Amino acid sequence: MTQESHDQAAALAGISHRFYARGWVLGTSGNFSVVASRDPLRLAITASGRDKRTLRSEDIVIVDADGRLVEADGGGRPSAETLLHVVIASRRQAGAILHTHSVWSTILSERHAAGGGLAIEGYEMLKGLQGVTTHAHREWIPILDNDQDIPRLARVAEASLAEHPGAHALLLRRHGLYTWGGTLADAERHVEILEFLFEAIGRSAQV
Amino acid sequence: MTQESHDQAAALAGISHRFYARGWVLGTSGNFSVVASRDPLRLAITASGRDKRTLRSEDIVIVDADGRLVEADGGGRPSAETLLHVVIASRRQAGAILHTHSVWSTILSERHAAGGGLAIEGYEMLKGLQGVTTHAHREWIPILDNDQDIPRLARVAEASLAEHPGAHALLLRRHGLYTWGGTLADAERHVEILEFLFEAIGRSAQV
Amino acid sequence: MTQESHDQAAALAGISHRFYARGWVLGTSGNFSVVASRDPLRLAITASGRDKRTLRSEDIVIVDADGRLVEADGGGRPSAETLLHVVIASRRQAGAILHTHSVWSTILSERHAAGGGLAIEGYEMLKGLQGVTTHAHREWIPILDNDQDIPRLARVAEASLAEHPGAHALLLRRHGLYTWGGTLADAERHVEILEFLFEAIGRSAQV
Amino acid sequence: MTQESHDQAAALAGISHRFYARGWVLGTSGNFSVVASRDPLRLAITASGRDKRTLRSEDIVIVDADGRLVEADGGGRPSAETLLHVVIASRRQAGAILHTHSVWSTILSERHAAGGGLAIEGYEMLKGLQGVTTHAHREWIPILDNDQDIPRLARVAEASLAEHPGAHALLLRRHGLYTWGGTLADAERHVEILEFLFEAIGRSAQV
Repeated sequence: MTQESHDQAAALAGISHRFYARGWVLGTSGNFSVVASRDPLRLAITASGRDKRTLRSEDIVIVDADGRLVEADGGGRPSAETLLHVVIASRRQAGAILHTHSVWSTILSERHAAGGGLAIEGYEMLKGLQGVTTHAHREWIPILDNDQDIPRLARVAEASLAEHPGAHALLLRRHGLYTWGGTLADAERHVEILEFLFEAIGRSAQV
Repeated sequence: MTQESHDQAAALAGISHRFYARGWVLGTSGNFSVVASRDPLRLAITASGRDKRTLRSEDIVIVDADGRLVEADGGGRPSAETLLHVVIASRRQAGAILHTHSVWSTILSERHAAGGGLAIEGYEMLKGLQGVTTHAHREWIPILDNDQDIPRLARVAEASLAEHPGAHALLLRRHGLYTWGGTLADAERHVEILEFLFEAIGRSAQV
Repeated sequence: MTQESHDQAAALAGISHRFYARGWVLGTSGNFSVVASRDPLRLAITASGRDKRTLRSEDIVIVDADGRLVEADGGGRPSAETLLHVVIASRRQAGAILHTHSVWSTILSERHAAGGGLAIEGYEMLKGLQGVTTHAHREWIPILDNDQDIPRLARVAEASLAEHPGAHALLLRRHGLYTWGGTLADAERHVEILEFLFEAIGRSAQV
Repeated sequence: MTQESHDQAAALAGISHRFYARGWVLGTSGNFSVVASRDPLRLAITASGRDKRTLRSEDIVIVDADGRLVEADGGGRPSAETLLHVVIASRRQAGAILHTHSVWSTILSERHAAGGGLAIEGYEMLKGLQGVTTHAHREWIPILDNDQDIPRLARVAEASLAEHPGAHALLLRRHGLYTWGGTLADAERHVEILEFLFEAIGRSAQV
C-alpha cells in the first residue's frame, strides 16, 4: 500500500470506532470505503466479517472497478457488499461511501418501504448535506428491498441513483443506510446528519 | 488574540466536545460564543461550518456588535448565525450564548410551534436556571419560525426577547435551542437543564 | 478532614462523574452523602450548587445530626437538601445516601403520584437490592410531593420511612430518587438497579 | 490457574466493562463464562455478586460439569446461575456463554412471554448469528419463566435447547438474555446482534 492508502485505512478505522461507540455498526455490521484512485478506479474498503469495534488499518483491502481484490496486506476478502460501493463511487463521483446499521434507519426503512422512500423536509439539519442551503430543502431517500444477490442489488441501486440524481443516500429495507460524500469527512458528516434526522422523525411518530 | 480570548476559545472547544458526545451538535450543527469585551462589544464565536467533534481554539473568531469579523487567527468566517448571538448578548447582558441541535428540542419545537412557545412548570430541575428558586416557577420558551434570512430572524428574536424578559432560552422551529448565561458555566448548565427537561417532557407525552 | 473522610470524599466525586456520564445528575442536580461517624452522627455531603461533572473532594463538607456545617475545607455550604440525608441516615442506619435526577424517575414520579407510590414486582433485577432474594419481591417506593420547605419535607420523608420500613428508596415528585445502602457501594448499586427498573417500566408503558 | 485461564479471565473482564458501559449489566446483574477445558468439562465463570463495572480477572472462578467449584484464586463462589452455563456448554458445544440484563430484553421477554418465545425474521442483522446467511432467516428465541430454583430452571433450559436445536439464545422472563458462541468473540457478537434486534423490535412496536 502507498502511504496515502495507509492514511485512508487509518481514517476508516477511526470512523469505525466512532460509529461503533454510537451503536451504528454493532457486531460485524457496516462497511466503509474511500476512493484510492479514480482512473483506474480503486477503492480502499473494509474486509468482510471484521468486528467494527476493533477494526484496524490491516482490515482494509483494495478493490478495482469490478469489485475484485487488488491488494490485501492483512489477508482479508473484500466486503460482501463491495459492488454497492463501486456503483456509488462510479455514479456519484463520491470520494467515500459509508454504510451503517442503526436502529432508527432499520425502523424507518421498514415503516416507509411501501412508499418507496423517505421524504425529509423542513429541518435545519438538512443544511449539513452537501449542496443544501436551506431547511426548506426536500430530501428523498429511496428505500430498496434487501437482497442477498449483491450483483442484482447493485443494479437496482444503480438504477435508483440514476432516477434520483439529487439523493444523498439510499436505505436498504431492514438493513441500513448507504451515504457518501466528496471527501471522507463529508461522508461521515452525512451519516451524523441522517442518523439525527432518522431519530428525530422516528421519535416524532411516537409523540 | 489576548490570553483571555485564547482561554475562552479553549473553553468553547471543551463545550463543543462534550455536547458532541451527548449528540447535541452532530455534524457542523450548533454554534457557541462568549463575550470577549462589553464596550465595545466583542464576541468570540465559532467559525462557520466547523465540525463540532474536532473543534479547536483556532476555530474561534472575534466579531463586533454588527457581527463583522474583527479577528480570525485560524482564517475562518463567523458562524452564519452570528447576528442572533449579538442580539442576545446585547439584550440579555449575557456573558455566553450556546446554540444546540438536539433531537428532543427539534421535536418539541415542532410540536409546540402552533402555541408560540413551550411552557415548563413544576420541575425541580428548573432551579438550575439563573434566578429560579422554586420548582413552581413557570418558564416560557418562545418558539420562532426558522428562517435563512438571518438579519430578519435576528429582528424577530430581538422582539421576542423584549416581549418575554424572563425567558432563559429561545427555540427555533425544527432547528434547536438558544440559551445563555452570565458566565460560560451558567450557559452550559442551562443547556444541560433544558435538554433534560425537553427529554422528560417529550418522553412523558409518549407514556 | 481525616484520611478516611478524604477517601470518602474522593469516592463521592467518582460516583458524581459516573452518574453525570449517564445523565442522572446533569447541571448542579443531585447530591450525595456518606456517614463519616455514627456517634455523634457526622455526614460527608456534597456542597450546595456544585457542578456534578467537575465535582472534587474539596466540594464535600461535613455536617452534624441537625444538618449544621461542621467542617468545609473547600469553603462550601452543605447541600440545601441536607436534612433529607440526615433523616435517612438516622432512620435507616444507612452508611450512604444518593440522590439523582434522571429522566425516567422524573416521569414515573409524576405518573404514579396519585397512587402515592410505585410498586415494582416480578423483576430479577430486584435481587440487587439489599436483602431481596427473589424476583417475586414487591418493592413499594413512596412518592412524596416536592417542597422547597426542606424541614417540612424532611418530616414528611421521616414519616414515610416509618410507615414503609421495607422501602429501599423514596421518589420526590418531578424531582428524583433518594436511595441508600449499608455502604457506598451498596447505595451506588441501588441507584443502578432502580434506574434500570424505572427505564424498563417507563418504556414498557409505551410498547 | 493456567496462563490460558488467566487470559480468558481477562477477556471476560473486558467484556464486562464494555457491556456495563452500554447498560446491559448494571449493578451485579449478568454473568459470563468460557469453556476452559472440554474433557473433563471446566468453565471459567464470574463469581457471584460481583459488580460488573469493576470486574477483574480474580473475580473469575473455575467450575466442573456439575457446577461445583474447582478453583478460585480470588476466593469467590461461582455465580448462582452456574448450572445454566453448564447446561448450555454441554448441549450446544459452546465455547462461551454470556448472560445480560438489558432494558429491551426485559421488556420483550415479558411482552412475548405468552407466546413462549420471540420470532425475529427479515433483518439483515441476523446474518451476524453463527451459520445464518440470509436476512430471510427466522430466529426463534424461547422465553422461559424465571425461577429461583436454579436446578429446576436448568432442566427447563435443557429441554428447551433440545426442542429448539437451531436457537442461538434463550430469554428468561423479566430477567434477560442467555446467548453463546463457538468462541468468546462469537458470543460477544451475538449479544450485540441480539440487543440491536431487541431494541429495533421494541421501538418498532411504539412507532
